[in-house]
Amino acid sequence: MIKVQFAARAERWDSYETPLNSAFLQAGLDVDLRQDHPAQEVDYVVYAPNSDLQDFTRHSACKAVLSLWAGVEKITGNPTLTMPLCRMVDPGLTAGMVEWVTGHVLRYHLDIDHSLATQDRWAPKIPPLAQERPVTILGLGALGSACASALTALGFPVTGWSRAPKQRDNITCEHGAKGLQRALSTAEILVLLLPDTPDTENTLRAETLALLPRGARIINPGRGPLIDDDALLAALDSGQVGHATLDVFRQEPLPLNHPYWAHPGVTVTPHIAAETRAVTAAQMIAENIRRGETGAPFLNQVDRKLGY
Amino acid sequence: MIKVQFAARAERWDSYETPLNSAFLQAGLDVDLRQDHPAQEVDYVVYAPNSDLQDFTRHSACKAVLSLWAGVEKITGNPTLTMPLCRMVDPGLTAGMVEWVTGHVLRYHLDIDHSLATQDRWAPKIPPLAQERPVTILGLGALGSACASALTALGFPVTGWSRAPKQRDNITCEHGAKGLQRALSTAEILVLLLPDTPDTENTLRAETLALLPRGARIINPGRGPLIDDDALLAALDSGQVGHATLDVFRQEPLPLNHPYWAHPGVTVTPHIAAETRAVTAAQMIAENIRRGETGAPFLNQVDRKLGY
Repeated sequence: MIKVQFAARAERWDSYETPLNSAFLQAGLDVDLRQDHPAQEVDYVVYAPNSDLQDFTRHSACKAVLSLWAGVEKITGNPTLTMPLCRMVDPGLTAGMVEWVTGHVLRYHLDIDHSLATQDRWAPKIPPLAQERPVTILGLGALGSACASALTALGFPVTGWSRAPKQRDNITCEHGAKGLQRALSTAEILVLLLPDTPDTENTLRAETLALLPRGARIINPGRGPLIDDDALLAALDSGQVGHATLDVFRQEPLPLNHPYWAHPGVTVTPHIAAETRAVTAAQMIAENIRRGETGAPFLNQVDRKLGY
Repeated sequence: MIKVQFAARAERWDSYETPLNSAFLQAGLDVDLRQDHPAQEVDYVVYAPNSDLQDFTRHSACKAVLSLWAGVEKITGNPTLTMPLCRMVDPGLTAGMVEWVTGHVLRYHLDIDHSLATQDRWAPKIPPLAQERPVTILGLGALGSACASALTALGFPVTGWSRAPKQRDNITCEHGAKGLQRALSTAEILVLLLPDTPDTENTLRAETLALLPRGARIINPGRGPLIDDDALLAALDSGQVGHATLDVFRQEPLPLNHPYWAHPGVTVTPHIAAETRAVTAAQMIAENIRRGETGAPFLNQVDRKLGY
């Protein structure tokens, strides 16, 4: 009997209990899934980084911590978390991200906000075609690459930027500091899908926001710290940035008194772009437990030095 | 110097002047483009059928009339229009339709209206994946098929319906009266792309609206008469239809006193989904002038007997 502890906020248990038990059954694993095993008996922890569980000192038999989140930056520095840590790479998460990013890129491209706001007059204003609307994606990992492919298929000219050189079909790939300048300079719509590392903090700040075409629209489903919030608010006020759709924030939930809530140039969404889907995520968790039990290497194990 | 007259409503000049001159330059044509050449000196007329120019008697040197519209039924009977007449076949129109339909399907799928309206609270509500959201398209012509492909690529299960049997990859194809019932019964999002014929009038009426899943969303970029407006309003009021985005109407512009304008369940857009695009249309015009100047046959020349 494999003892698996489910450590996440209470409301998650309802979403995950059935999918996880189904996935364990399907994988032929004999699992006792609970929220409250004695710490020293736990074999695996299914983990959300905002769980109450922060001290793993007593989890002495634990073979791996399996994160429900793709981003693990909040826990890679936890000195008590010494066992293998795997991040979530959920095919449902990627699909959901592609849908969300494509939907908001098209919303900006077609000016759907304007269509919804002006229900009082017949004033045809034809948008350019996607082929005339350059989109830049910062970050060409699994999520950035999948979004780039979907947007390219719709006709958008896509530029992708990553720290190290990458090659992707039908996408203009840029890298490094000079490449970032080029990638930003054409970005009528900019999508942020970089990981949260010390290098990527404040990727968008006063100097880099100034490189965008005037009136550029920004979509951030990546990580809150990628943006210097004060610099973005100033760029929105000056018109340098036309609008921003922000799904992630330095503090979540976004505090009620944060200026983003009331700013007419900002749409706040409550961290929904890259939600782990219970059914597909449970299958990933089960596969990693199967690997742990058979001695096979874990999927998506975090390299503590790289931070992801 | 080739003398080209631009004959369309005044506001079109602003959209077309630059794209046309760019296209002429790119095609290596030395063109003097104006709205007011002396009639007898005009080599080509770029023409919108609702222009003031209706009498071509004095256009004695004119080598061709190049319509900006795909539909030329209003002018094929003009007895003064004796020179070659070409209709517009704009690749940008299909691309624009795909972008508009995909954008509004994703808007409904992701509940973007809700995101824009509730800027006051952090209340995550995760949409299902596209693979769990069936979309039905009525009409599998060039536009319907192109939209179906784009939606399929994003993961939506797409059902297409046409009068006669058709086959399309990765799409559930239905036809005939029984097929229409099946196609409507699964349509969480319904897209209307049928032509306007006596057979298709009131395709959506009380009986067919009742077949939809409760709360279905409707997108009509096709033709106004496809919908019985009173029946749609009743279905919106009862909650049978959740929302409708309407781009085309029996009378356009939609009269100011029409209940669609004020209905909270309706988004009106001003016939913008399938617009001829200045840039791609200008390239078509330039190509036809190049052909005229080199003696090559015109593209899309209208057969006066067939009427198109």
